[in-house]
Amino acid sequence: MRRKQLADAIRALAMDAVEKANSGHPGAPMGMADMGEALWRHVLRHNPANPDWPDRDRFVLSNGHASMLLYALLHLTGYDLPMSELANFRQLGSKTPGHPEHGLTPGVEISTGPLGQGIASAVGMALAERLLAREFNRPGFDIVNHSCYVFLGDGCLMEGISHEACSLAGTWGLGKLIAMYDANNISIDGKIDGWFTEDVAARFEAYGWHVARGVDGHDAEALDAAIVQAKGVVDKPSLIVCRTRIGCCSPKEGSSKCHGAPLGAEAVAATRAKMGWNEPPFSVPPAVRAAWDCREKGRKLQAEWDAVFAEYSRTYPDLAAEFERRMRGDLPADWRARVDAAIDGIAAQKESIATRIASKQMLDALAPLMPELLGGAADLTDSVGTFHKLAQRMEKPFQEGNYIAYGVREFAMGAMMNGLALHGGFMPYGGTFLVFSDYAKNAIRLAALMGLRVVWVLTHDSIGVGEDGPTHQPVEQVAGLRLTPGVKVWRPCDATEGAVAWKMALQTRNAPSCLILSRQKLPFVERTPEQLAAIERGGYILRDCKGVPEAVVMASGSEIQLALAAAERLAAGGRRVRVVSLPSVSLFATQDETWRESVLPRAVRARVAVEAGAADIWHAYVGLDGCVVGMRSFGESAPASELFAHFGITVDAVEAALHTSLSNVSAVKGA
Amino acid sequence: MRRKQLADAIRALAMDAVEKANSGHPGAPMGMADMGEALWRHVLRHNPANPDWPDRDRFVLSNGHASMLLYALLHLTGYDLPMSELANFRQLGSKTPGHPEHGLTPGVEISTGPLGQGIASAVGMALAERLLAREFNRPGFDIVNHSCYVFLGDGCLMEGISHEACSLAGTWGLGKLIAMYDANNISIDGKIDGWFTEDVAARFEAYGWHVARGVDGHDAEALDAAIVQAKGVVDKPSLIVCRTRIGCCSPKEGSSKCHGAPLGAEAVAATRAKMGWNEPPFSVPPAVRAAWDCREKGRKLQAEWDAVFAEYSRTYPDLAAEFERRMRGDLPADWRARVDAAIDGIAAQKESIATRIASKQMLDALAPLMPELLGGAADLTDSVGTFHKLAQRMEKPFQEGNYIAYGVREFAMGAMMNGLALHGGFMPYGGTFLVFSDYAKNAIRLAALMGLRVVWVLTHDSIGVGEDGPTHQPVEQVAGLRLTPGVKVWRPCDATEGAVAWKMALQTRNAPSCLILSRQKLPFVERTPEQLAAIERGGYILRDCKGVPEAVVMASGSEIQLALAAAERLAAGGRRVRVVSLPSVSLFATQDETWRESVLPRAVRARVAVEAGAADIWHAYVGLDGCVVGMRSFGESAPASELFAHFGITVDAVEAALHTSLSNVSAVKGA
Repeated sequence: MRRKQLADAIRALAMDAVEKANSGHPGAPMGMADMGEALWRHVLRHNPANPDWPDRDRFVLSNGHASMLLYALLHLTGYDLPMSELANFRQLGSKTPGHPEHGLTPGVEISTGPLGQGIASAVGMALAERLLAREFNRPGFDIVNHSCYVFLGDGCLMEGISHEACSLAGTWGLGKLIAMYDANNISIDGKIDGWFTEDVAARFEAYGWHVARGVDGHDAEALDAAIVQAKGVVDKPSLIVCRTRIGCCSPKEGSSKCHGAPLGAEAVAATRAKMGWNEPPFSVPPAVRAAWDCREKGRKLQAEWDAVFAEYSRTYPDLAAEFERRMRGDLPADWRARVDAAIDGIAAQKESIATRIASKQMLDALAPLMPELLGGAADLTDSVGTFHKLAQRMEKPFQEGNYIAYGVREFAMGAMMNGLALHGGFMPYGGTFLVFSDYAKNAIRLAALMGLRVVWVLTHDSIGVGEDGPTHQPVEQVAGLRLTPGVKVWRPCDATEGAVAWKMALQTRNAPSCLILSRQKLPFVERTPEQLAAIERGGYILRDCKGVPEAVVMASGSEIQLALAAAERLAAGGRRVRVVSLPSVSLFATQDETWRESVLPRAVRARVAVEAGAADIWHAYVGLDGCVVGMRSFGESAPASELFAHFGITVDAVEAALHTSLSNVSAVKGA
Repeated sequence: MRRKQLADAIRALAMDAVEKANSGHPGAPMGMADMGEALWRHVLRHNPANPDWPDRDRFVLSNGHASMLLYALLHLTGYDLPMSELANFRQLGSKTPGHPEHGLTPGVEISTGPLGQGIASAVGMALAERLLAREFNRPGFDIVNHSCYVFLGDGCLMEGISHEACSLAGTWGLGKLIAMYDANNISIDGKIDGWFTEDVAARFEAYGWHVARGVDGHDAEALDAAIVQAKGVVDKPSLIVCRTRIGCCSPKEGSSKCHGAPLGAEAVAATRAKMGWNEPPFSVPPAVRAAWDCREKGRKLQAEWDAVFAEYSRTYPDLAAEFERRMRGDLPADWRARVDAAIDGIAAQKESIATRIASKQMLDALAPLMPELLGGAADLTDSVGTFHKLAQRMEKPFQEGNYIAYGVREFAMGAMMNGLALHGGFMPYGGTFLVFSDYAKNAIRLAALMGLRVVWVLTHDSIGVGEDGPTHQPVEQVAGLRLTPGVKVWRPCDATEGAVAWKMALQTRNAPSCLILSRQKLPFVERTPEQLAAIERGGYILRDCKGVPEAVVMASGSEIQLALAAAERLAAGGRRVRVVSLPSVSLFATQDETWRESVLPRAVRARVAVEAGAADIWHAYVGLDGCVVGMRSFGESAPASELFAHFGITVDAVEAALHTSLSNVSAVKGA
């Protein structure tokens, strides 16, 4: 069996699927088919029957539009992805969506498509492997010992995140990270010599990578040799520059015309003829199929590992149990009681501290319980309070530690946290200023799309930032994160809510959480035990009036104080005003109708919301007769206390808004 | 006068201002003081009396936290920034905010602080210079001939956007771009050898830059020489690696401790002693002041240029007038009539086309009127329709053209467009898929903060994207952009609204616009001339019922069709439903009360909004009795038509929501 023929099976399936869907990207799978054959049949340590085998090699298709390459590889090597799924490419409910989706398709390690993020997440995966190996391997028991392979294209390398992540990977010397660059000189706008002329190999050497230059990406033996060489370089990540032809073997080979549209029946026929591929669509000859089948090899690989792990479990039973727990992502058995005790402890201090400080206190309490916590920050460690008392910075030679100095690289931090979470064994969290979550937004989005437990510690909320000014003062960021499906946003009003937010973030297995924390001190708020428990609802009555409320004032974070003070003023005037704390608006929205009605009764129409940020989303809670006190512009550079007055985020404003809303309601009733 | 003493004036002022504000960043200004002296006193061609002189050199402080360096330079060289402003550093209403703000302080070319964006915008400025020179210079008349200088630090170089922009600058060979790298080996988390070990010089050489390695950043003559050498390299951008000590001359020199906090009185006194600086705070000796004063030199420089330009105006009067118009940012004199004619032409076609196609048609019409249009796309040219019929791609040797292939670099595209707009002479627009506006979000934000006219062509709106799936289908992006202060968001429902959106974007001088455009065809909607005019209000009645409406259904973009159909169904059942089109919600919100009331009468409480996106912000318009039909999750990979049904964005759903809202209102009235 010629290896070219095995790669042609990928090309044929990619053409067939795109043609049938009348949509998709044939060029990249056809160009990378030989790379796929070299890696997946010969080198990749995987077990198609068990995509969850902990010690499998990881494979990341960073140029995710080449999804048909991955689906073909999964199908041909024996994963549970039948031909019917390939024939259902890009259709509703199929396991073969336009871009790979983790959790949907067996063997898809990560959702890719947004360029550059795959390689960055792969850096996270390779780091996870190294740290887990250091923690769990014992002499004679290399239970963690696998590589991370990445395919990536010109687009990934143009994106800035590739710089951030690959620079770090070089610093860390992640020898088990091997990236294969599909260097075809084509991107969507055509030949790249008009916009991408850098010497990529020299750039990666500047990062400290091993680089194999100019490997023929259609020569299986040359690819083999380059991969073997790369595996031999254990102290540096490797980049294999594979010279390929996009749409290889088709009449449109080498042109951007085969990037993102079906080839068309004529070109498909011509390609089949050129390849000597005489099968009907979605058909693979038995001999080719047999040569591709990796099930037996995979079964053996895992059986060997299983035997080692069984012996390891006998020798180090606690360690083995802990490894299994960590890889499952379970919390420690006694976690809930101990975390609740930590929350009670923070509440009992009754301290008026910045919520970023409360977050650090909670991390101090969590760290002894959860060695899987893997923290870090984008060069703002002291400011964001992510360095807990057991934190140990990963330092040269970068073999161990539980704290990562990511440098000023918010986006790569986000994608790397996604990679750490995907790999398993760690619960990553990372800090930066809230306003710079902008830089990382799409990584947060992908975390939500994949349902990953990563925690963003986003401090320096609102104009409370003060003197650093409008470039550093978030306005629209909290609302923007709340609007992103699946993202759990917490904006605590004091230390207690901050502590609970951490608990919720860690016990939410299938979603990222963003903790929005203040730079400035926030007054401690007294709560009953019931109120303390109710924080986990996302919204609850913080101070109620006597009798049926005439009005409700709701807020989150630093503005709770304004709500409390305004309600008191109205109470002094004989009005009945309820104060509702909504630390997590989106979580509150998912509570049952009874709870929501008990907190915000439909009948109470005089409603005011206060938030020192873009406040439009609060209209969902205050309605047409309510008022929102919020920001309508960017901030200014000045001491924070002056800014709240300057922008009218004040007790006076909340009081006035309550009166306005009360009269709006009277007017409507009178009408 | 020793040059060190001149630099010490900067150090003293930086210390004094940070000390008085009790907030700020002394370390970077003190470390870069000698770089500032070398560049600003000796090389920079500027006229402190006229910060708007078109042919001045541009200066970008990419590491904007070093703002006191810039303020000291502006003050000392003679700009209208008196000492009282330096003494008012970081206070409300001062001209010396925490980070430099363009438009507030004379001589501040760009707002910086979010790291990496300054250098990227500088690439845009340098490109603007080159293209304008090619267009307007004539033999003997180099009316455009200036350099762009950038100071940047380790943080900027860690950020991915520095890679995107500097790779492009290398490809383009922007010889007049000279970046001076404050290489002090320190970032906030400490010595960078734990997270930034790449060979920056080799990296930039790989980009095709000239690099001066290892220049002593405290040796004025060495800096002079490096700058002279860099100016001599006319076919490559230059990076001068300046080895500096953060907080130079203070006891905290070389430590991250002097990065972001006042030095304290004791350290300030020690620094003064070490420098031999015996002045009281905010005082500069007359001799030092005299040596710094660049006013006379600047006056002469501009006078020379003025003379050349006067002669140029006599020789080429039309060209000179056009240059002046372009630099003022005025639209051509007959612009309005001709653009309105173009809109009428598009409306008269009555074509049901994708709004991305309508956008291209409008560009075809605008291009002959506006040579200042400088388009581009992030490697999606054909998909986003940004290449109009007069577009000419900038190609090797990258000296001319009106269309930029940015490559897959959304963030750099955004920051470069900001730089092009700041430089003047161009009206930049750039296209990408809406979902990838995430990558560029903070550049859009900075455009809004600076009030820059840049136009984002954001196509492939909503689940209408179809088969590419959830990674490519925007959900929260439109809402997120609407929430960003100052950003003008348009989501047109057909070709006519799309054409008007372009008109509005170009005539909005002081804000960025985002045009949210469909991949799929949208049916043409008939309008009266009054309705056509009303599009410019952002929201208007598209179809009214007979008599007072019982309910209003509002929508934007592709969902207008659902609103129209649902309203028709209810009309068939005898109900009175008004359909309101809101192509620009934020613009509608700024209309006078009379207009808003005429479109959405307060008394009509049965309200439904439809949008195939995160729809929470629509509650501001529908209230507690209204209903919103929108997305609550990410999308799926499937043909677009199936997705609208799958996610319940349908006429049936809108019809049901109208009935629900009507009964909500009845229930409230009955209560």
